[in-house]
Parts: sequence; structure tokens; C-alpha cells
Amino acid sequence: VDHLLARAEQLDAADPLAGWRDRFVVGDPGLIYLDGNSLGRLPKATQARLSQLVDVEWGEHLIRGWHDWVDLPERVGDALGSALLGVAAGQVLVCDNTTVNLYKLALAAAKARPGRRVIVTDDDNFPTDRYVLAQLAAQQDLELRVIATPIDEGVQLDAVRAAVDHDVALVSFSHTAYRSGALAPMATIDELAHSVGALTLWDLSHSVGAVPVDLSRSDLAVGCSYKYVNGGPGAPAWLYVRRDLQTYLGNPIAGWFSQRDQFAMGPEYSPRQDVGRFLTGTPPVLGLVCVEEGVRVLAEAGLDRLRAKGIALTEFVIEVADAWLSEYGVRIATPRDPERRGSHVVLEHPQAWQLAQALTAAGVIPDYREPNRLRLGPAPVYTRFIDVHDGLSRLRTILRESSHTSFPAKAASVR
Amino acid sequence: VDHLLARAEQLDAADPLAGWRDRFVVGDPGLIYLDGNSLGRLPKATQARLSQLVDVEWGEHLIRGWHDWVDLPERVGDALGSALLGVAAGQVLVCDNTTVNLYKLALAAAKARPGRRVIVTDDDNFPTDRYVLAQLAAQQDLELRVIATPIDEGVQLDAVRAAVDHDVALVSFSHTAYRSGALAPMATIDELAHSVGALTLWDLSHSVGAVPVDLSRSDLAVGCSYKYVNGGPGAPAWLYVRRDLQTYLGNPIAGWFSQRDQFAMGPEYSPRQDVGRFLTGTPPVLGLVCVEEGVRVLAEAGLDRLRAKGIALTEFVIEVADAWLSEYGVRIATPRDPERRGSHVVLEHPQAWQLAQALTAAGVIPDYREPNRLRLGPAPVYTRFIDVHDGLSRLRTILRESSHTSFPAKAASVR
Repeated sequence: VDHLLARAEQLDAADPLAGWRDRFVVGDPGLIYLDGNSLGRLPKATQARLSQLVDVEWGEHLIRGWHDWVDLPERVGDALGSALLGVAAGQVLVCDNTTVNLYKLALAAAKARPGRRVIVTDDDNFPTDRYVLAQLAAQQDLELRVIATPIDEGVQLDAVRAAVDHDVALVSFSHTAYRSGALAPMATIDELAHSVGALTLWDLSHSVGAVPVDLSRSDLAVGCSYKYVNGGPGAPAWLYVRRDLQTYLGNPIAGWFSQRDQFAMGPEYSPRQDVGRFLTGTPPVLGLVCVEEGVRVLAEAGLDRLRAKGIALTEFVIEVADAWLSEYGVRIATPRDPERRGSHVVLEHPQAWQLAQALTAAGVIPDYREPNRLRLGPAPVYTRFIDVHDGLSRLRTILRESSHTSFPAKAASVR
Repeated sequence: VDHLLARAEQLDAADPLAGWRDRFVVGDPGLIYLDGNSLGRLPKATQARLSQLVDVEWGEHLIRGWHDWVDLPERVGDALGSALLGVAAGQVLVCDNTTVNLYKLALAAAKARPGRRVIVTDDDNFPTDRYVLAQLAAQQDLELRVIATPIDEGVQLDAVRAAVDHDVALVSFSHTAYRSGALAPMATIDELAHSVGALTLWDLSHSVGAVPVDLSRSDLAVGCSYKYVNGGPGAPAWLYVRRDLQTYLGNPIAGWFSQRDQFAMGPEYSPRQDVGRFLTGTPPVLGLVCVEEGVRVLAEAGLDRLRAKGIALTEFVIEVADAWLSEYGVRIATPRDPERRGSHVVLEHPQAWQLAQALTAAGVIPDYREPNRLRLGPAPVYTRFIDVHDGLSRLRTILRESSHTSFPAKAASVR
């Protein structure tokens, strides 16, 4: 008797979000998708909205469409901020990608703390964050102070405390760690940074849409919208600038969409006095409406219910992995305390790369992260407990039969 | 007898691109669209491609879609570069927006000329260019030397010559002027800049897809793809970095897509050794496939035929305006020599704003530019000569009846 199957069925039957799966396109019903934290599924509403946008607004309204499009970065930003970040209107924009937004805000913050020479981050921060901050520090003649983070544990307060002094202009971490799912202690880090007069910049890419955050003490944040927000491949990212900082910080990329009287096209750059000053050039309209639809679905589901289900799903992943996979050398590399993790679970195994290939061939889509990590992101809004059960059941079969060893080992792909 | 009507019909009958209009969505057959230089029409192929991308690739392939998407910035860049810029593969990327691309390349160029303290541009350059360069100069402690350009004439060589000395790091102009359609003398400016060791950065937004350019002497270029390239509202922009400069210049926004072994996610930033180093974060996949389809249509039409028809269309605009509109105080504010103008024609009139509103109400879509300019961009690939005839005929009626005076004068819209 598979008592975990009964558990899964029981959990699905009691799930208040069970019906929400129907709001998404599910092409192959046999496919088990456990990578919603890399690219979220396609909401059905997005299909209809895109048709309207492309066929009617672009195709027929043509340039007149800008009447409705020009405020999309703020309108979608307000919706996302309200539903997923818990912040009041006028503080979030959807624009550019996460990398560009991080650059804009990090440079603005560094410039706002003249005389201070240090930016603090950690060695387990997402690569684009580390690269952007390193390059920015080099160009501005600043020091990037990279603290060590134990890969399974997330950012350590002791290390932050040791790194943060009065020479620090900016402290920047990810909230949910991409490799482990561990949560950084945001509130305490905000407090530590502020106690020395530094600003904080959070990357919420792996949190937004799945994990509630309290930005009331934070200064700046960025994040993507193609993971839990279901905005589609390469969907525009978002940025948050707390209201009282908006006129204090300058956007280094001073494009025309940040100009006060944009269509006067006057001789001098005179930036807007609100969050709009962090816009750059013409915003990506197709991507913006996809984000708007993605946010709408999550807003109706409710972040509290999403978080509750995210915890239940990851608890179930851990429960099943403990029962079935530990005997094959699979180790849970994510905090077991649900209050200390986001919405994905990482399984460590020496042949994780081959396991990922074998799982994909078996109709289960996981993610892989260096050096030996199988990353499972059962997005709360459309993933069923039975998906977790069936996916891990196939993984157990692969491990039992060692069928993954017939897949090639990982080769580096240098361009 | 309306002999200009006969001319229009004759020109349409002889037009080798006449059939190409059918490749675009034309919703209201009575609408005359003369703003293809602001937002190009929707290619029918783009509708089909987007459906495939969204419904199948995103909806069903999910994260596996990245196998085909990851190279889109370079693949679409190569196609655009080959068909519309006449450059060999490996030098163009489609990514970000024009503002961000301009910032990246301008800052990279300034850093590549240490010790030089000046960036040269002109006061008629597109606003985003002027704002970006001004802000960048301020932040890098450089001087932005802004030469005066007579609004109807385009960039003047004498002024460039006077401004360019051995203290100049970068010279940056638009090729086709947005307010007049005047062309800047690219080759001579490239030569002048190089004679003092400066780099050149061209904004080709109002040229690409309509006017051939010779980049063989140029260093850097950027441009948008939502005008003549028909990539859709907020479509991603492109950038060009000549091959021998690619490892010499550094991308200031060092995102993970510019990393050599991107998915190793290693500790150090080690940028790619090709044009890919100018990528930032995750590229906008929906916009990229729209640009790919837009480029494909123009590539099949052929840039030579597009330019020939662009000249014929703008000649016809001028011929009709001379015949019908000059008596009402309309002045041609674009060079009459077709070799000295791009693909749009500007009509100056003291009530241009009201004329634009009246035209729109009459089913003719023009553009308006400060302070008194009606801008007509009859995009060669889908605009008929009869459209020019009918559009200007309606404008003549408006002027004759003074019906535009019932529309409100322009009010500034400061945010």
C-alpha cells in the first residue's frame, strides 16, 4: 500500500487552490512540471489578452494604442506591488530586466552615499547579482565585500554583522537563495544596514509570487516576473523604490521615459519626481500585459493561500524524499524549517545532472544547479500534491534501476 | 481633373512592392496610416509566430523552450545586421531598449578612451540620446559638448569639425534626424572622429529598415525595431559593435547572459569574447520573435527596393504638399534632395498640433513633433501612393475649411 499516494490525494482534495490549475494551459496531461520557479506556466487569460493586444491594439489601433500602453509600467507595477509585495501604489515599476534594474538601483544607491567605499553581498547570491555588483564596484572604484554563505543555510547574520560598517554604502542580497531555497533574515539585515547608514537592495526573484515579504524596513528591491508570477519567457522585471527615496536617488540611465514632460522633448534632462524616474526607454508592451495577467491570477488566489500551499507542497516533497530517496544517497539541501525556506526544495546527489536528464526523459521537468543539485519548484498555484508524488516516484524508479547512469555526464558549455 | 490622383495610381501600378501590403494586418481599410516611423504595422507572419511561441513553446515546452530561445538575441541580430545594416554576422544583438543599449555602448566607449574628457552630440539629437549622454557625462565627470544643428538641415559638418579635438572620447549622433528627416553625413563624421582618435556611436532608429547605411567606418550603433522594422510596441532594440572592438570594450551592465560559461554560475565575472558580452539579463523572448518576423519581411522585400520606394513616396509627399498645401502656410521642413533625407517628411505649420488632431479624426494618422511639426512617415513596405494622395487630400480639406481650429491647442502634460 502506498500511503503517500493516499496522503497526496487527501491533500489535493482539501486544497483551496485546487481549481486554479484550470486557469493555466496544461498541454500534455502526463507531464509533471516541477520547474515553475524557473519559468512559470502560461495562464489562459494571457492567451486571450495577448490576442487582443496584438491583433486589435497593435494591428488596428496602431500608434493610438500608446494611449493605453504608456502607463503600463506603473499600472502593472502597482498591481504587482499591492498583491505580491504588500506595498502601497507608486513605488513599483515593471520595466527592463532584473539585471538592468539591479544595476540602476545599485549605482543610484552607491552615488547616494558618497564617501562610502563598500558594497556588501554574499558568495551564494545569484550570479547576475554578483557580476553586476562586481563590475559596478570596479568601475566606481568601490570595494565589493563578498561574505561567505554556507550553500544550504542562506545568508548568515554573523557574517553580515562582521561585514557591515560605516564605510558601507549598500547591502544587497537575494531573499530566497536560488541554490538552496533558504531565506535570508530580511528584517534583521535591513536593521543592521540602517544602523550604519547603509541602504539595502533585495533581489526577490525567487520569492515574488510565492513568499510574502515585509518591505516596510527595506529601501530598494528588484525581481523577475517569469518564475512564480508566470509572465512568460523573458518577461520584464520589476523594481521597488521606497517613496521617500524616489527624489533622493538618481537613475543613471536617464532615458526619455523618465523625463517629466516626456513629449516636450526639451533640451534639459528633468527627471520625474516619482518612481517613474527609474524608467529608461520604451517599455516592452507585450511582456507588460503578460505580467499584468500573471499578477491578476495570483492576486485572486491570494498570497496567503499561495504561501500556505507552498509550504505544504515543499513539506510533502521533503516527506516523500525522506521516505523514498534517502537510501539512494539523496540529501535534502534546503532548510527543513518551513519558515526558513522559500517555495523550492533542493535534492543533493552526486549524479544530479544525470538524474535531471533521466527525469526529463521520464516526463518530469526538474531544474539542475551546480554542482550537484536537483531543484524542484512546485509552484503553488498550479501544482498538485499528486504531481509531487508521481514525480518523486519516477525519480525513485530511476535511482532504483540506476537508469540515469546511461545519460552523459555534464560538459561545460563555454561560448 | 485631379492629375495627382492619376500619378498616384500610376505609381502604385508600377510599384514592385505593391503586393507586400498584403503581408500586414490592415484592419480598417479606410484608415490612412502615415506613422510607420513611430510604430510599424503588424505583419501577419508575426501573429502566427507569436501563437506558436506562446501556445506551444511557452505553454507546452515550458522551460525546455530555452533550448531554442537562448540564442535569439544573436540570431535575430545577425538577420537584422545582414538584411538591414549590411554587416557580417557576429556583430549585432537584439536586446534591451535603445536607451539601455546607448548607455552601455557610450559608457564602454568613454571608458575605452581614458584621459579624454569630452563626448560630442548635437542639440537636435533624439531626447533620450541627449539625456543619456548628459547624465553619463555628469556621472563620469566628462563634458558633453552639444553642437547646434539647424532643425531642418541635420548635423552640420563645420560644427562637428569645430567640436572634435584630441580631448574627445566619443562622437554620437542620430543618422536620420527625428524632427526633420535630414541625414547626417555619416562617413565624413566617422572620418573626422577617427582622425582625432575618438570613437563613433550612431543612433539609427529612424533609418533602420528604410535607409541603407554604411557601417564599414563606424564603431558602434544602436537602434530600435518598432518603427520601420515592425517589431511591435516596445520591441527590443539592437546594438552593433564592430568585431575588433568587442573584446576591447567592456559592458558596464555585467549580467549573466554576458558570462562566458553562463550556467556554470561561477564566482568570477568572465565575459564572453564576442558581441554576446553586451547582453545583460534574460532577453525578452516574445519581443525577439516579433523582431525576427519583422526583419524577415523586410529582408524579402530587399533594402534597395525599400529605399527606392521610400524616396518615391517622400518625393510624392513633397510634390503633393507643394501643389496643395503651400497656399495654406504649410512649409516642407525636410531636405528636398532625396539623398539628404530619410523616409519621413515633416510639414511645418503654426497649428500643426491641431492639424494632427483633425487629421486623426478624419481617419489619417500622422505624427506630431514639437514645436509645430506634422511628421509623415509613409513606411515603404506597406504604404501606397494613393494613401499619400488621399491623406494629403484630407489635410487640404481641413486647411481649406479651417476645421482644425475647433480642436484644442496643445497643453503640456507634466507628470
